[in-house]
Amino acid sequence: MTDLIRIEDTPKYLGQTVKIGAWVRQKRGSGKIAFLQLRDGSGFMQAVASESELPEEVFKVAEHIKQETSVYVTGVIQENPRDDFGFEMALKDIEVVGQSEDYPITPKEHGTEFLFENRHLYLRHLKPYAIIKIRNTIIKATYDFFYDNGFTKIDAPILTGSAPEGTSELFPVEYFEQQAYLSQTGQFYGEAGAMAFGRVYTFGPTFRAEKSKTRRHLTEFWMIEPEMAWMHQDESLEIQERYISSLVQAVLDNNQAELKMLDRDPKTLEKYTQLPYPRISYDEAIEMLKKADFEIEWGEDFGSPEETYLANQFDKPVFVLNYPKAVKAFYMKRHPDRDDVVVSADLLAPEGYGEIIGGSERDTDLDYLVERIKQEGQDPATYEWYLDLRRYGSVPHSGFGLGLERVITWVTGQEHIREAIPFPRTLNRLWP
Amino acid sequence: MTDLIRIEDTPKYLGQTVKIGAWVRQKRGSGKIAFLQLRDGSGFMQAVASESELPEEVFKVAEHIKQETSVYVTGVIQENPRDDFGFEMALKDIEVVGQSEDYPITPKEHGTEFLFENRHLYLRHLKPYAIIKIRNTIIKATYDFFYDNGFTKIDAPILTGSAPEGTSELFPVEYFEQQAYLSQTGQFYGEAGAMAFGRVYTFGPTFRAEKSKTRRHLTEFWMIEPEMAWMHQDESLEIQERYISSLVQAVLDNNQAELKMLDRDPKTLEKYTQLPYPRISYDEAIEMLKKADFEIEWGEDFGSPEETYLANQFDKPVFVLNYPKAVKAFYMKRHPDRDDVVVSADLLAPEGYGEIIGGSERDTDLDYLVERIKQEGQDPATYEWYLDLRRYGSVPHSGFGLGLERVITWVTGQEHIREAIPFPRTLNRLWP
Repeated sequence: MTDLIRIEDTPKYLGQTVKIGAWVRQKRGSGKIAFLQLRDGSGFMQAVASESELPEEVFKVAEHIKQETSVYVTGVIQENPRDDFGFEMALKDIEVVGQSEDYPITPKEHGTEFLFENRHLYLRHLKPYAIIKIRNTIIKATYDFFYDNGFTKIDAPILTGSAPEGTSELFPVEYFEQQAYLSQTGQFYGEAGAMAFGRVYTFGPTFRAEKSKTRRHLTEFWMIEPEMAWMHQDESLEIQERYISSLVQAVLDNNQAELKMLDRDPKTLEKYTQLPYPRISYDEAIEMLKKADFEIEWGEDFGSPEETYLANQFDKPVFVLNYPKAVKAFYMKRHPDRDDVVVSADLLAPEGYGEIIGGSERDTDLDYLVERIKQEGQDPATYEWYLDLRRYGSVPHSGFGLGLERVITWVTGQEHIREAIPFPRTLNRLWP
Repeated sequence: MTDLIRIEDTPKYLGQTVKIGAWVRQKRGSGKIAFLQLRDGSGFMQAVASESELPEEVFKVAEHIKQETSVYVTGVIQENPRDDFGFEMALKDIEVVGQSEDYPITPKEHGTEFLFENRHLYLRHLKPYAIIKIRNTIIKATYDFFYDNGFTKIDAPILTGSAPEGTSELFPVEYFEQQAYLSQTGQFYGEAGAMAFGRVYTFGPTFRAEKSKTRRHLTEFWMIEPEMAWMHQDESLEIQERYISSLVQAVLDNNQAELKMLDRDPKTLEKYTQLPYPRISYDEAIEMLKKADFEIEWGEDFGSPEETYLANQFDKPVFVLNYPKAVKAFYMKRHPDRDDVVVSADLLAPEGYGEIIGGSERDTDLDYLVERIKQEGQDPATYEWYLDLRRYGSVPHSGFGLGLERVITWVTGQEHIREAIPFPRTLNRLWP
């Protein structure tokens, strides 16, 4: 099997006879010629079977092959400028490895429900393939960015014994004799890590038992949560925009073919690599919304329509700074000059995608945090170890959280977030 | 705050006056001179406060500073060849940022239970710091290796609706109106991914509700599970040893300081980068054990003592090939020449660490797999989507699973696996 070459390597074998293991994703032509659309995971290529140049039994195999049959194909690699992938194989021999009878995802249109019921097969098709390849690039670019910028990865636990922000959006787990929950954020663990390693990030699955069915929500999704000790919010914003820009650049560098498969214009993405991103205050955002006749008052949080409108006023992601204290989490730092807002920022993606990052500087004062926890009707004892971070050498620090699938949905130009993860989990979907 | 420099950058500022934000991890000296051991997450450094050269109030702050107080220190960077870290600061000014009264982890000896009850603070100390820095290197080297070798990351879901291998070692989750479980392997999803992307890997947390308390088990741990289509076991073994070697090499390249902190001899690790690793058959392993007076018969699985003995016969990791079919999972490929063994391999780490990888070629035949599932007393319907991979273009493929924390425990030379993860989860530990 080591004599097999991969489709992505075919340009190196121009004019040579090679053997490839692949699946037949489509067959066109009839009579004297058959075009087999092949894929092997590394790429796509057409093999041309010509009746006049092949032994009868070889042509017959090619002519009758079914969708998603796996085969060894042998033939000569040649250029084909009219082909999407630039190269094709003049078939000399074909051997069936695994049959495929009645493959369910035929070339006709299928409903979304059906496609995701067959997600284990649907991943073989062009659109999911392209999106998951881009996901792969974004994951790798994330590790590169944080490693190159002196961050240490701190994996936060998924199983937690306490339920700080209330249990209504948490999934309960039976943990031997104890009650546990699936974590919906690694931030507090990230803050503990920042006090030990300076700059850290978590990157793992998180869980939210939201009953809402929207195109922006999954019950299981991946989050990246960096946390930086000795850093104020202004420097954190610079890291955030450099990080997003590096992700988009990595996709432009590595996934031109996939962007084409998705009809996603690289020119649109190129704008997103240009820094800095605009910054507006929450106050300014409210003014903009009021002028556009939104019914919103200062102090209210934004919903999807508001975020979409704001994001569409800019051709790059935009930071909205300093939200009202009342709509944000207790740990966000008080504004130095104002009592009603916190030192926070959400990053809204253009083209109607809305929030992709939420972040803030964190308050450093033990007494203030205990007071705020009580104000929210919670018990400071639940936060005992977290509060230790303010008891023993508290320092200025900032952090943010980025939803991986939201970024992928935006970069790939998809309508629904379920496209952005190999095996989506939603209110009604636990399979496959 | 942007005028702060990080300790790792101090060599660039030799002879200059700089300002650093740091924690005081220890204070030595008395009377006329105080030595402050500083850390800022990026590195470690000593600051020297000399009574004769400092204003009285500055020296007083330095002299009375408590463990884990956070400070801004200003001073001149100078070389100190006798110091572990090579450089020190001649202190000119010190400003307390966050007090630290009665920090619980004092320089005296503490019990393991106490240290892990305070894991959020314990991470600040030398040993955990060094181990997690090495973990960070190994994680990054994993992404580099698989990216560079043409693999696509396929994130397997954590929440699964079915419980293929029985529920006794699974954590149950209430998923709205349904029963879900936490995944203990992403392999089946990896196999689906391999049929779409050729070479894939999962890398995420996995869960095993084992009631056993051993130094090799966590209930929540991270696994790397690569799966390669169009690949037989021999090529998979080559990838496995190249992968392990690349991890050890990355640690040697990036973590000499941390290895020193852990008293881990780099010379020992250098041997592990030399390929190939020895391969012995299960049959040979049984013979070796019998000669060494182990009470074991052909057909039995190895326990920890057996693995330890076998691994200690080699100065590198050793592959044990082709285990008896009866002790291995149903999906492992039948041996072409023998009915009693499968095409599998476990990789055992030396120095008593035992299994770090388990893998096999996967059987491609639908009827055989259905039969084996029934033999194990299970219902093939549970595996319906997995069996689709054999219905539609089944191909030769191989894969393996590596336990991240087991590798870290071995590379860092630790006795217990709980040291290898930032926030360990064990039978009795869900906190912090």
